[in-house]
Amino acid sequence: MAPGLPDKKKAEDEQSSKKNLIHLCNPHLEQMKEDVLYHFALGTGTQDFPTLFGEVKFVCVGGSPSRMKAFITYIAEELGLRTPGYDHPNICAGTDRYAMYKAGPVLSVSHGMGIPSIAIMLHELIKLLHHAKCSSVTVIRIGTSGGIGLDPGSVVITRQAVDATFKPQFEQLILGKNVIRSTDLDEQLANELMQCSNEIAQFNTVIGNTMCTLDFYEGQARLDGAICSYTEGEKLQYLKEAYDAGVRNIEMESSVFAAMCKLSGIKAAVVCVTLLNRLEGDQINTPHDVLVEYQQRPQKLVGHFIKKYLGKV
Amino acid sequence: MAPGLPDKKKAEDEQSSKKNLIHLCNPHLEQMKEDVLYHFALGTGTQDFPTLFGEVKFVCVGGSPSRMKAFITYIAEELGLRTPGYDHPNICAGTDRYAMYKAGPVLSVSHGMGIPSIAIMLHELIKLLHHAKCSSVTVIRIGTSGGIGLDPGSVVITRQAVDATFKPQFEQLILGKNVIRSTDLDEQLANELMQCSNEIAQFNTVIGNTMCTLDFYEGQARLDGAICSYTEGEKLQYLKEAYDAGVRNIEMESSVFAAMCKLSGIKAAVVCVTLLNRLEGDQINTPHDVLVEYQQRPQKLVGHFIKKYLGKV
Repeated sequence: MAPGLPDKKKAEDEQSSKKNLIHLCNPHLEQMKEDVLYHFALGTGTQDFPTLFGEVKFVCVGGSPSRMKAFITYIAEELGLRTPGYDHPNICAGTDRYAMYKAGPVLSVSHGMGIPSIAIMLHELIKLLHHAKCSSVTVIRIGTSGGIGLDPGSVVITRQAVDATFKPQFEQLILGKNVIRSTDLDEQLANELMQCSNEIAQFNTVIGNTMCTLDFYEGQARLDGAICSYTEGEKLQYLKEAYDAGVRNIEMESSVFAAMCKLSGIKAAVVCVTLLNRLEGDQINTPHDVLVEYQQRPQKLVGHFIKKYLGKV
Repeated sequence: MAPGLPDKKKAEDEQSSKKNLIHLCNPHLEQMKEDVLYHFALGTGTQDFPTLFGEVKFVCVGGSPSRMKAFITYIAEELGLRTPGYDHPNICAGTDRYAMYKAGPVLSVSHGMGIPSIAIMLHELIKLLHHAKCSSVTVIRIGTSGGIGLDPGSVVITRQAVDATFKPQFEQLILGKNVIRSTDLDEQLANELMQCSNEIAQFNTVIGNTMCTLDFYEGQARLDGAICSYTEGEKLQYLKEAYDAGVRNIEMESSVFAAMCKLSGIKAAVVCVTLLNRLEGDQINTPHDVLVEYQQRPQKLVGHFIKKYLGKV
């Protein structure tokens, strides 16, 4: 906290909390006249954030830009917000780092692959929502993952995001020193999403822990990367230990997502489909059309949740 | 190494080394009939890798897909390989995870932002080069970075990639255990690139250490993220310590890039332009056209190097 500001800051925090505004854990931002969100190619000096984004209540994020465009088309249709022939423009058209689309109260943003990539996006998204004076926002990651002990195509709603040693924490280096943050997600939101899956009853969904790794190959005990120094037996033992610790799927973004949303007072959930069962293999060689249908499952589940929340079911 | 294979493996390793082939540190791959490079949407069962990629001698990689497309257009022109009106197709058109372009012996591939994103790409790139039986390949990252104590627009050729505590190493979690790898880069290649910069004499270039971080905001001591718990004084002290340790720029991919190329016996270099001087600020608010010109500098330098190597200067 900046020196000399505790009373003002405390009053603002109380006000933020009452209105469910976004909580910015950074006293330095108050002193900036303008804020350039470089990786979105947006800035408070060039765009009117409250007008553009003030009505946003749901932000859905996922790795692939084309998947996030497909989601906005889908949710706009579902919410009755779709104009025939209208193509949702990419709000971040000035950059190819991320893509962003909007339909009414829903924002859909891509985040690329891995913790660093989603962290950059979240820093700028959280500031965007703050500058836009958004309130009561829910952020949901809809992604893909490798499953453990589940039939491919199953959907996992994350109870806790855990690290590669199965601990529910996110370690980050700040000024060269290790800082450990909690990766708790909103339990009630997870249960509400599970209820939505039961209502649509189209695919298997479980609530389980999600392991978040820094690498797709060696970091997830795959045998098919360019580098591998362990045996198949060691791989399977590690994945079984993960299963015993409650891990049902593995992906690469949930821990920093949970940690940053929690620090910013944002209700958050992670809903990922599993593309394969890692106890049975490493390669993703399922036919393209099957993978496309799998990837629509988190979209359907979260689409149903948003419709229900807005009284449109 | 797989049991029972030491003699065969040793003979192969010797042969690889003689021909400067790509060294795959993974005995399991020999047993796979087909290899699906999922994030490239390519596979040995569907594409003929030696025909498609066998002639590749230089691979240039960078974060942004549009920048890597611009690079292939530029280098094709420089090498006299450009057909008027011809638009280089994206070889990875079946996915939006990465983009890949080719012009004669040069491959240009995007890698997104951060260590996990470039690591996935490198696993699949190294396997691609191996399957294609490429020999004597040089891989160069051409990217953007934040500078320390340099005028914006300066180019840094990396001597050593260092971590957030300034150590020349890359820590990776494998089966939940910490593995430390060397981040040495090819010293001769760095000197040859420096010589190229002297020859074109268009911008300031230095050889220095590059700090590779897992985050753009807190991980690089910025004051303008959604979360920040340190003071400006602490930030400046950290950056000055980095400078004293020989760090001249900060980015998010060099350490795993150096480590994976070294393990695979690939000659590698990192050439990044600095978009700002971090001792003077955090926000990237330089005009768009200036940033575009800065981003062309590593392309020009590496383009000159490739031309010289191919006897076209």
